[in-house]
Amino acid sequence: MQTLPHCETLLLKKQGPVLHVTINRPESRNAMSLQMVAELSTIFTEVESDSSIRAVVIRGSGGHFCAGGDIKDMAGARNQDAGEGETDPFYRLNRAFGQMLQQVNESSKVVVAVTEGAIMGGGFGLACISDVAIAGPTAKFGMPETSLGIIPAQIAPFVVERIGLTQARRLALLGLRIGAAEACALGIVHQAAASDEELNEMLAQALDRIRHCAPNATAETKALLHRVGHESMGGLLDSAADIFAKAVRGSEGAEGTMAFMQKRPPAWTDTK
Amino acid sequence: MQTLPHCETLLLKKQGPVLHVTINRPESRNAMSLQMVAELSTIFTEVESDSSIRAVVIRGSGGHFCAGGDIKDMAGARNQDAGEGETDPFYRLNRAFGQMLQQVNESSKVVVAVTEGAIMGGGFGLACISDVAIAGPTAKFGMPETSLGIIPAQIAPFVVERIGLTQARRLALLGLRIGAAEACALGIVHQAAASDEELNEMLAQALDRIRHCAPNATAETKALLHRVGHESMGGLLDSAADIFAKAVRGSEGAEGTMAFMQKRPPAWTDTK
Amino acid sequence: MQTLPHCETLLLKKQGPVLHVTINRPESRNAMSLQMVAELSTIFTEVESDSSIRAVVIRGSGGHFCAGGDIKDMAGARNQDAGEGETDPFYRLNRAFGQMLQQVNESSKVVVAVTEGAIMGGGFGLACISDVAIAGPTAKFGMPETSLGIIPAQIAPFVVERIGLTQARRLALLGLRIGAAEACALGIVHQAAASDEELNEMLAQALDRIRHCAPNATAETKALLHRVGHESMGGLLDSAADIFAKAVRGSEGAEGTMAFMQKRPPAWTDTK
Repeated sequence: MQTLPHCETLLLKKQGPVLHVTINRPESRNAMSLQMVAELSTIFTEVESDSSIRAVVIRGSGGHFCAGGDIKDMAGARNQDAGEGETDPFYRLNRAFGQMLQQVNESSKVVVAVTEGAIMGGGFGLACISDVAIAGPTAKFGMPETSLGIIPAQIAPFVVERIGLTQARRLALLGLRIGAAEACALGIVHQAAASDEELNEMLAQALDRIRHCAPNATAETKALLHRVGHESMGGLLDSAADIFAKAVRGSEGAEGTMAFMQKRPPAWTDTK
Repeated sequence: MQTLPHCETLLLKKQGPVLHVTINRPESRNAMSLQMVAELSTIFTEVESDSSIRAVVIRGSGGHFCAGGDIKDMAGARNQDAGEGETDPFYRLNRAFGQMLQQVNESSKVVVAVTEGAIMGGGFGLACISDVAIAGPTAKFGMPETSLGIIPAQIAPFVVERIGLTQARRLALLGLRIGAAEACALGIVHQAAASDEELNEMLAQALDRIRHCAPNATAETKALLHRVGHESMGGLLDSAADIFAKAVRGSEGAEGTMAFMQKRPPAWTDTK
Repeated sequence: MQTLPHCETLLLKKQGPVLHVTINRPESRNAMSLQMVAELSTIFTEVESDSSIRAVVIRGSGGHFCAGGDIKDMAGARNQDAGEGETDPFYRLNRAFGQMLQQVNESSKVVVAVTEGAIMGGGFGLACISDVAIAGPTAKFGMPETSLGIIPAQIAPFVVERIGLTQARRLALLGLRIGAAEACALGIVHQAAASDEELNEMLAQALDRIRHCAPNATAETKALLHRVGHESMGGLLDSAADIFAKAVRGSEGAEGTMAFMQKRPPAWTDTK
């Protein structure tokens, strides 16, 4: 990504190995539009092949992370009929959003979500596929779909993966709204900050830790974590040993071992 | 269910869209008998086709939820030999209980457990398949089976689904008893009340939330949650998008959207 | 196990039905060597067929549980090239460790980990496959692999099984170190002691509970717990009912029921 692509709904800023993505539709509390879904997907596709980026930070402008699906897009889809042999526009709208969630979930980069204000519906789903999620003091999380007569279709599966069936069934079936402390206790976010200063401090610490970890080793580890539970443990561990041997013999393994012996930081910590 | 069926072991009371089921064998701390298993199964079968019911609240009379399997039924089964080609009576007794747990777990209605006093063995299993579980100040949870030389056979799998392998192995292998606060921390229950008043208040709030959520959307969402982890994420999300499109175009989706635009509560909140 | 096998890296002591295994390489903070992996595997193989042993307690000497993989073994493997048709020595080293973790995880005995000081890398993995884990006040847990340019290959899958994907991805991808209280909140350990006295008290209580639970019923229950999520719920419950019927009709079931009627402790609690 020599130059950052132009986006209508997102602000992009690269700082050293970190790409900061700010959802920027404050007039609608950063509601998730079709265009925003497409732009997030484009960004994560570009980032995947950009070795200068190790982490992507997602947050919202104007004090809100993302208030959910965009009502205008919904109304637009309602006015369309599916032509013969075509899929329902509501299907396409919904599935495109879930496709983007799958992509971000499996991104090889470390994804950090900074959650403030409204984190509802689609925004809740987006928070649930981050590697590190930090909540600010104003954060409110919820799946209000059933109270609107619809269902949290693409979101609910990621919520179950995030916090387990037990807590997901209560949150989804009661359409509850919860604050940062409860979200942290349930594991939606990893940390809840008491102030904006603490929120920024927690983010800085997470980014500093990412700087200390070897980029390829981190990507390999993330891919490995995602495989657990989807294949037999024995086969997974065989494959993991193979990845391990390659990592040790690779350039990061060599540099890491040498830096450890020489009591110096490894080269990958030196980022601009 | 025009008229509530007659039950020997359960008290039934319908209040608006809520069926209150009270386990009523206080002389044995509501021990789970064969008859109680059969009656719970009958009730949940009837409820399934009754669109006037949205939630089922299960609690116990006399200050206890359910103290586990009934020793008399166990003794009765011991005196029976399996006839040739017949299954062991202990097998049938145990499996019938697990069959009922599976049925209640997958009920399309929202199941709320109000847990007080003894929630042991089979009672523990029953608490673990609720959508919302609230504990009163006297609640004690445990799987005492191994200390009696037997195993928590139908229960343990639902406990693992409820709280994960890590906590289940400690609870089951040590035959521990824990109180409401620890049960809440582990996720056996969602909330622990400090008093009977608070318990009733928490129940009232949960039922109020259920009233605000569209019945069919809630049932579809619950079914979706149960599928996570049992099929590929991609296929599940495809299917979820299909359910979403139907929900938006259905009567609840239309009413929910219109109510939202008109800033009024949707029709389904008006229940008697 | 009439006589305890001789081990170079482990101290063994049998106390009644409990085998105490102390990792004993204090000069390297009990780093996990190839020999230690082999000796742990031998011990758990022998224990499996020894009905006099019900529990195995693993802890470390010199104030540390286990600081991770041994750098010397790593250096040794680096100097070896894989011969034609042979597997990479790093592969063998890594996979042997994971094989041991799988074996200990599925041991039919109750495995208790007493975690103090450094519980890093391989040591973290070992803690994560215990049935009961207790942390002392000095405990520090972490997966520093990616900061060394390598990956927590055999460990990460067990960490996901232990604490779920949500928390595992943050810990692994940031290479974090956490203390006993956070490890307890995440479920890495079940209890965190504020002092050495409390640590010993918690261990004594766990061992006392194990004494009250029937040995075969405990082993059957543990095997059942490990099957959840790996087969269909219906089939698992069918099988569990079968195991239940056999347990009730077996000698432990008979003794447990009789002891309960006679209001006396069952025979298996009387251990020397």
